[in-house]
Amino acid sequence: MRGKKPPLSGEDRMIARYFAPLAKHPGALGLRDDAARFAPAPGHELVLTADAVIGGVHFLPDDPPDLIARKALRVNLSDLAAKGARPAGFLLSLALPRALGASWLARFSRGLGQDVKEFSCPLLGGDSVRTPGPLAIAITAIGTVPHGGMVRRRGARSGDAVMVSGTIGDAALGLQLCLGDKRARSWRLPKAAQNHLVGRYRLPRPRVALAQLIRRHASAAMDVSDGLAGDLAKLCRESGVSAAIDVAQVPLSAAARRVKDRALETILTGGDDYEILFTARPDRVSAFRKAGVPVTVIGTVVAGDAPPAFVLDGRRLIFGSPAFSHF
Amino acid sequence: MRGKKPPLSGEDRMIARYFAPLAKHPGALGLRDDAARFAPAPGHELVLTADAVIGGVHFLPDDPPDLIARKALRVNLSDLAAKGARPAGFLLSLALPRALGASWLARFSRGLGQDVKEFSCPLLGGDSVRTPGPLAIAITAIGTVPHGGMVRRRGARSGDAVMVSGTIGDAALGLQLCLGDKRARSWRLPKAAQNHLVGRYRLPRPRVALAQLIRRHASAAMDVSDGLAGDLAKLCRESGVSAAIDVAQVPLSAAARRVKDRALETILTGGDDYEILFTARPDRVSAFRKAGVPVTVIGTVVAGDAPPAFVLDGRRLIFGSPAFSHF
Repeated sequence: MRGKKPPLSGEDRMIARYFAPLAKHPGALGLRDDAARFAPAPGHELVLTADAVIGGVHFLPDDPPDLIARKALRVNLSDLAAKGARPAGFLLSLALPRALGASWLARFSRGLGQDVKEFSCPLLGGDSVRTPGPLAIAITAIGTVPHGGMVRRRGARSGDAVMVSGTIGDAALGLQLCLGDKRARSWRLPKAAQNHLVGRYRLPRPRVALAQLIRRHASAAMDVSDGLAGDLAKLCRESGVSAAIDVAQVPLSAAARRVKDRALETILTGGDDYEILFTARPDRVSAFRKAGVPVTVIGTVVAGDAPPAFVLDGRRLIFGSPAFSHF
Repeated sequence: MRGKKPPLSGEDRMIARYFAPLAKHPGALGLRDDAARFAPAPGHELVLTADAVIGGVHFLPDDPPDLIARKALRVNLSDLAAKGARPAGFLLSLALPRALGASWLARFSRGLGQDVKEFSCPLLGGDSVRTPGPLAIAITAIGTVPHGGMVRRRGARSGDAVMVSGTIGDAALGLQLCLGDKRARSWRLPKAAQNHLVGRYRLPRPRVALAQLIRRHASAAMDVSDGLAGDLAKLCRESGVSAAIDVAQVPLSAAARRVKDRALETILTGGDDYEILFTARPDRVSAFRKAGVPVTVIGTVVAGDAPPAFVLDGRRLIFGSPAFSHF
């Protein structure tokens, strides 16, 4: 008598079609219940982080839907990696404008599914609603660490090396290119360099591969999302220390090197890097090279509670605004 | 040398002032890190749920900020209660329009703090961003149950009693009053009755006190958020059963009883009830009365996969739209 079954609602159909395939964790119950079940492995605890992205604020409304989805997940995975945690799953709250229909959703969920697979981070549950405003994607990501293993912003000690993964500043430069900023046009960058920078803005690379080494060897860590200068100041404040940074050592991509004399402040304070900023005892520095992720020593933790010093050619740089803040 | 310390960003100041006081769980780390730590008690696992509310969709833009905050948390606590879980904490993603300033935030966080205390559910972490759109509040709530203890939508068996907590339909009627709906004006309800219904729309009462009994004695459960008729259909579908509901037994408030002949469909399908709908073996029915929360038997689970029958005066009711759906 299947024909008598009550029809699924539009919301249930949408979940079944686009999101249930991403919910491979058995505790997600196929997204057919009110909640998900989750138990960390014995001896482990959870690391929880929530980050939302909003159309027109964190991405451009005409960005490709698969990249929007992947960026929304990746900014959360970046936080987990910086805390030394292994991704276990995530919950997704999606506020959808009416203009975004089935084909947009299909591309969004395909992109999300790609990263669910790449980072072994299944969808556990969530919620979807219509909004009269811009697209808003709120994700809560869940990671696990052995008990007591979460790496804090607090813990850096005088004499530790200050290190970063990858390269700094690409995404902030990429955003200026996306916005067609006048200054960015004056850079006259070759197309390949532009594509590199814009790609780094649209699709962060969370350093999940580095998480285990961060957990074992870092004294303090955080992800760089609001700009290297401002985020280092936060790490130092929590650790009760200061730092001396040799700006010439800050790792830059080939594209960023082309504009570093004209856009250094953007590079050091612009944000959206999603690299890991961390500190470690000097004898641990070489241990971080095992993950195959580039890591670079950019300075030293020093005593005191002054703001970190960014030094170039013997002069200390002064920034107009050291970090991005929404408020 | 305090004067030299770098100033906190606007965002950090806002978090420290309005939200850190709600983050009493030690794993929240005072909201001064990128993530929170959380470990369930030995022998327990997590129940995870995420629900967002949007201005103009789930609440009216001029609703009092303290009630908006409490409703956003309570709709999540309602899900946990229906799954038999005890609240452990939550993460909050707040997208704030520029128009909402310090005094709005102060009232919002005061309301949230009241419920953090009432339901012993501390803030664990989150995120706040500016939005060009309406206020959006996405919450992920975390509850705990003994291993394997989460109550599912699946599990109802033929012969079980169908039960609900509290009263049904108040919030849907309250919303029509808030909207100044023409039909609602024709009800000519006394002010006290109007206040009751509007109050139920603005501030749900999550049945946290019933959670332990649900976990011990219910065969299946879910919270009623999209309307009794539609939500019962979902529970039945997941359980592979049908149900026969005696509409005369559906518990109504005194205010709802005044309009039940004119607004029965709104009452049974309107949603926003945040009561618990559950099933139990007949010999367990009396066990649910121990929590001090009113519970009522409204029908019986029957075999088959037909939509649940809502019967009044020997006739089966047919609804235009059995449940609220955003899509």
